[in-house]
Amino acid sequence: QPVPRPARLGLCAACHGATGEATMPGAPNLAGQRLDYLRDALAQYRDGRRDVPVMRTAIGAISAADLDALARWYSAQPAAEQAQP
Amino acid sequence: QPVPRPARLGLCAACHGATGEATMPGAPNLAGQRLDYLRDALAQYRDGRRDVPVMRTAIGAISAADLDALARWYSAQPAAEQAQP
Repeated sequence: QPVPRPARLGLCAACHGATGEATMPGAPNLAGQRLDYLRDALAQYRDGRRDVPVMRTAIGAISAADLDALARWYSAQPAAEQAQP
Repeated sequence: QPVPRPARLGLCAACHGATGEATMPGAPNLAGQRLDYLRDALAQYRDGRRDVPVMRTAIGAISAADLDALARWYSAQPAAEQAQP
């Protein structure tokens, strides 16, 4: 079944795009990324093992359930065929 | 012009696949990822800002020029439409 659009998508979409195509330098594409990797990365940002203040702030504002919904959303998006330069 | 296949692709391909589709849990897909993000991530693994021993070891074994060729290779690969579960 299709993955529902997360209620809290807007905060992530500002940099990663609503469908996981990054909108700014330094932000990765997330579309089609492996779900296990997205969950691990979010946990690392939350714990500070990846020390990226904007990510820590963003994650702190979102519940664990909403974070999981966001990881599932981005993993389920079809990836663009080619990276933007 | 097409990006040449890097001479040192094998070490990365063991986990990330030759075309950037990850072959094991915990490893991200790299196909079509933004080049700036791949370069930043490699620098962070090398410096220990992302503390992932297998990546630090792998990066230490590859010259800076070869690393750049690898980032360009993976960024240029077409992404699979859909993530594997």
